[in-house]
Amino acid sequence: MRSTQKPSPMAAHRYPPFAFGVDLPDRTWPGRRIETAPRWCAVDLRDGNQALIDPMGHDRKLRMWDLLVSIGYKEIEVGFPSASQTDFDFVRFLIETGRIPDDVTIQVLTQAREHLIERTYEAIRGAKTAIVHLYNSTSALQRDVVFGMDRDGIVDLALQGARLCKKFEEGVADQTEVFYEYSPESYTGTELDFAARICNEVIEVFDPTPERKMIINLPSTVEMSTPDLYADSIEWMTRNIRRRDEVLISVHPHNDRGTAVAAAELGLKAGADRVEGCLFGNGERTGNVDLVTLALNLVVQGVDPQVDLRDVDAVRRAAEHCNQIAVHERHPYAGDLVYTAFSGSHQDAIKKGFDKMGERSAAAGAAVEDAEWAVPYLPIDPRDVGRSYEAVIRVNSQSGKGGVAYLMRTEHSLDLPRRLQVEFSQVVQARTDSQGGEVTAAQLWEVFADEYLPSADYAEDGAATEAWGRFALRGLRTNSSATRDGGAGGVDSIEVDLLVDGEQRTASGAGNGPISAFVAALASQGTAVAVRDYSEHALGAGGDATAAAYVECEVGGRVLWGVGIDANTTVASLKAVVSAVNRAARG
Amino acid sequence: MRSTQKPSPMAAHRYPPFAFGVDLPDRTWPGRRIETAPRWCAVDLRDGNQALIDPMGHDRKLRMWDLLVSIGYKEIEVGFPSASQTDFDFVRFLIETGRIPDDVTIQVLTQAREHLIERTYEAIRGAKTAIVHLYNSTSALQRDVVFGMDRDGIVDLALQGARLCKKFEEGVADQTEVFYEYSPESYTGTELDFAARICNEVIEVFDPTPERKMIINLPSTVEMSTPDLYADSIEWMTRNIRRRDEVLISVHPHNDRGTAVAAAELGLKAGADRVEGCLFGNGERTGNVDLVTLALNLVVQGVDPQVDLRDVDAVRRAAEHCNQIAVHERHPYAGDLVYTAFSGSHQDAIKKGFDKMGERSAAAGAAVEDAEWAVPYLPIDPRDVGRSYEAVIRVNSQSGKGGVAYLMRTEHSLDLPRRLQVEFSQVVQARTDSQGGEVTAAQLWEVFADEYLPSADYAEDGAATEAWGRFALRGLRTNSSATRDGGAGGVDSIEVDLLVDGEQRTASGAGNGPISAFVAALASQGTAVAVRDYSEHALGAGGDATAAAYVECEVGGRVLWGVGIDANTTVASLKAVVSAVNRAARG
Repeated sequence: MRSTQKPSPMAAHRYPPFAFGVDLPDRTWPGRRIETAPRWCAVDLRDGNQALIDPMGHDRKLRMWDLLVSIGYKEIEVGFPSASQTDFDFVRFLIETGRIPDDVTIQVLTQAREHLIERTYEAIRGAKTAIVHLYNSTSALQRDVVFGMDRDGIVDLALQGARLCKKFEEGVADQTEVFYEYSPESYTGTELDFAARICNEVIEVFDPTPERKMIINLPSTVEMSTPDLYADSIEWMTRNIRRRDEVLISVHPHNDRGTAVAAAELGLKAGADRVEGCLFGNGERTGNVDLVTLALNLVVQGVDPQVDLRDVDAVRRAAEHCNQIAVHERHPYAGDLVYTAFSGSHQDAIKKGFDKMGERSAAAGAAVEDAEWAVPYLPIDPRDVGRSYEAVIRVNSQSGKGGVAYLMRTEHSLDLPRRLQVEFSQVVQARTDSQGGEVTAAQLWEVFADEYLPSADYAEDGAATEAWGRFALRGLRTNSSATRDGGAGGVDSIEVDLLVDGEQRTASGAGNGPISAFVAALASQGTAVAVRDYSEHALGAGGDATAAAYVECEVGGRVLWGVGIDANTTVASLKAVVSAVNRAARG
Repeated sequence: MRSTQKPSPMAAHRYPPFAFGVDLPDRTWPGRRIETAPRWCAVDLRDGNQALIDPMGHDRKLRMWDLLVSIGYKEIEVGFPSASQTDFDFVRFLIETGRIPDDVTIQVLTQAREHLIERTYEAIRGAKTAIVHLYNSTSALQRDVVFGMDRDGIVDLALQGARLCKKFEEGVADQTEVFYEYSPESYTGTELDFAARICNEVIEVFDPTPERKMIINLPSTVEMSTPDLYADSIEWMTRNIRRRDEVLISVHPHNDRGTAVAAAELGLKAGADRVEGCLFGNGERTGNVDLVTLALNLVVQGVDPQVDLRDVDAVRRAAEHCNQIAVHERHPYAGDLVYTAFSGSHQDAIKKGFDKMGERSAAAGAAVEDAEWAVPYLPIDPRDVGRSYEAVIRVNSQSGKGGVAYLMRTEHSLDLPRRLQVEFSQVVQARTDSQGGEVTAAQLWEVFADEYLPSADYAEDGAATEAWGRFALRGLRTNSSATRDGGAGGVDSIEVDLLVDGEQRTASGAGNGPISAFVAALASQGTAVAVRDYSEHALGAGGDATAAAYVECEVGGRVLWGVGIDANTTVASLKAVVSAVNRAARG
């Protein structure tokens, strides 16, 4: 089969291929595993905040700060205090109200200009520790169209900034231990040799030590390539940054090409030590890399993320409140639909996975909550992030027996036999195919009751007030002869009061149990039924538990199921036979 | 700076590391470029549809079909006809109404069971071409908990399915050319040697040729690893799938770890020929890989995607209608906010990028629409996907002069001088810092008018009905002496009617132009003004264009700007001086 795709009128000719890569045939990152959590830096209050239609005021900022601290982030970029009075005031508030835990370091962003740097140090004065994050843009494009400077000019800008930082540091050094971060902003549009040069010259000015490392942050300010090329560049930089043991390499991926998570992960494999990002990927344009996804990606590989996301919905609600941007339904780990299976085969497999985990844990005498997670289609146990199983199986026209059976069991305590699952799911599908939409657990019950149960069975007083079909069971007397070993199973005779086509009748029969005796009684009324399968279970625990009975019957050449529910297990089974007979008569 | 991160209580111990990778030290894919579009297969009507709360009925299905065809997709999976009556009916509708273009091939999914396969061929009968997509689940987990089968059993299931396909093909072969696709479903949880075995055995049954290739689709049904490990597996499979020239390798990534786009791209580098996905990443749970992002990622690398997304908003609206799921604000290329810069430095750089592109295109006599795209922070020209520039620069408390200046120019035709941009953006920021929220272009105009313009200046009749500040200009008479070379610039005398503190006055002065003469007239009223900078431009084209004048003045020791707008260029400049004087008086 040949491709019939045709050239498009898209303006691809306007876009040159990525020009800032490096040829790295001896790269070592591919195939590596990430075995420990990186250092995290949450930049929600700065990079995230600057990208909001309605940036956070004091209250939302404080809520975000408390959230980030509670999750366990230890480096938090709190603002660009020299550029925004709100940011400045918030940093002062944190410091002056003692809101910064001893093990948390605030980070503040500044451009490389004297009055901005001076103001930045005014902002952090009194904090126990702080990271001053100096940046200037280094890309070929920005050097040309924004700054009109050559490489030397851009390096000078960075070095002047670094020297000014050192100068103003003296004014706060009595109270505040200052660490440094430098970002060659728009790194992904920067020739790598120049990126290494400017970083190395800045490192010389800040003069870090192994005890007081500085951070070199290599942002994909605009994501411009596939993530493997970004990883190549990070590996190359780790080889070409001098004083490597005095430097932490940080990545800060944006998501313009939809591959920020991959860029961060491959960047870590390539030697980065640290990731800057935002909860749920907030940030300029397409956002920053999502710290929640990164952390939970570690969990599902067995790596402790060193942050606590056991209640991802609470984190989500708080972030949505602060950012005024909703998390998408399909957002990894946190979206409304990401633990939901609508497809029948998925539902079936999930149900079997749950069942098998339960059985195996029970057999091992272990708690299923601690067992290795092994459920198809669900990469993580929803409970491990604070979700319930409620949303896992949802039923629509694409669902098969698995989903239907799962909902009937979890929501209505009915454990339908397999062939009944098949039969009932066809009933459900006929309905969803014609009406569309999702079938809720409550609607599923309505369909089920309408199909299998006389409406009286779920009248509150339990009285058989309404007939459903040709037959209704109104009374029952049995006489059982015990077998010699004292067990059940002897010959039963039965007398039943029936309503047949609205007319009271009494019929009797005998058999090796109440069902077969009842079948004989029905035969005496001219209705031939053969029972092919039967099962019954309690609907709850305790002595007055209601029972559900399922019988598969052959009636008039058709095979179909009946269901009976009653507090009396015998009555439940006979009602099930009546249900099947009536369904057969209904045609 | 040592990390203070602490172990978390997350249940990472329940998750083993990814166990289905391959050691591939001689991998060749990293660093490769993607230089042509892959074959696309859009699965919105099947994989996408099955994951919707409200699956598409006929009308929405048809709209989605028409959309996919119009974009240029040539292989479209239209349903799972043996599992859904709606799907079956829709496939029949497409065939019977001649809705399938000659160069488009429909694809239908089926499980490997006889009655499903039979029904599948009933569905496709009469289509010119069709791809029958056979799948069964091969993962270690599903073999265990879902099927309770060993490897041989799972292979038999697939081979039986393939043989049944060949058998039922005979019944449609007179009308329909059938191609085959086989998916070892849950491939990412399958041992690679087993995946290769089952694919190779299925290939033998289907017996493709170089002219009639079959498709081997390797889905990350659940995304279980970083995308480099997926790419390793694809490269290994391309080496271990036999009859490689008779087989197309297809990838079908899901997005559980947020790296589906990367998985598809690295999979293509690793040798895959084809991608299955959905518009905007719809699909089970976290969705399928997003075909829109993949295609536009090609465009920004200069590669023709062979699909037409020149109006991405129209595609988005149609997909949102069909799926009843919104595209997120930060979705690459299509979200509401992805071409928007709120940050001041970004806005400034974008503005300069636009300006430079315009200048260079003009100098080269070329259309800017065809010039190489070179605007910082915007990976693609919004116009190339049908967006306007309107949303590019939006102003909030995080914005600086760049955004403010951009909006004043594009929305209000005022090209503010650079230092006036700085001054006015501080006015705007003081307001946004205190009030929060975005400032729309209309609100920006209100702030500007309130700060610089007497309200009369924008009264509809143009009459100076209202004073603003101490001074208002009411009338003007000038007498200019032409210089000997006939140009302007001789000595002017001026007589002006002023309203000063509500009192009518007439003042006069002389200078080497109307502004200096007016300054002299103001001095005669006891107001000392020194003009430091001046510029003026028309507000539109044509003879009756209004002019805007900007003057930077020193008044009472302060330096500040004034703005005047008038149809008369001289009056505009004098109004600008009045504006500055009044602002100084206002304090």
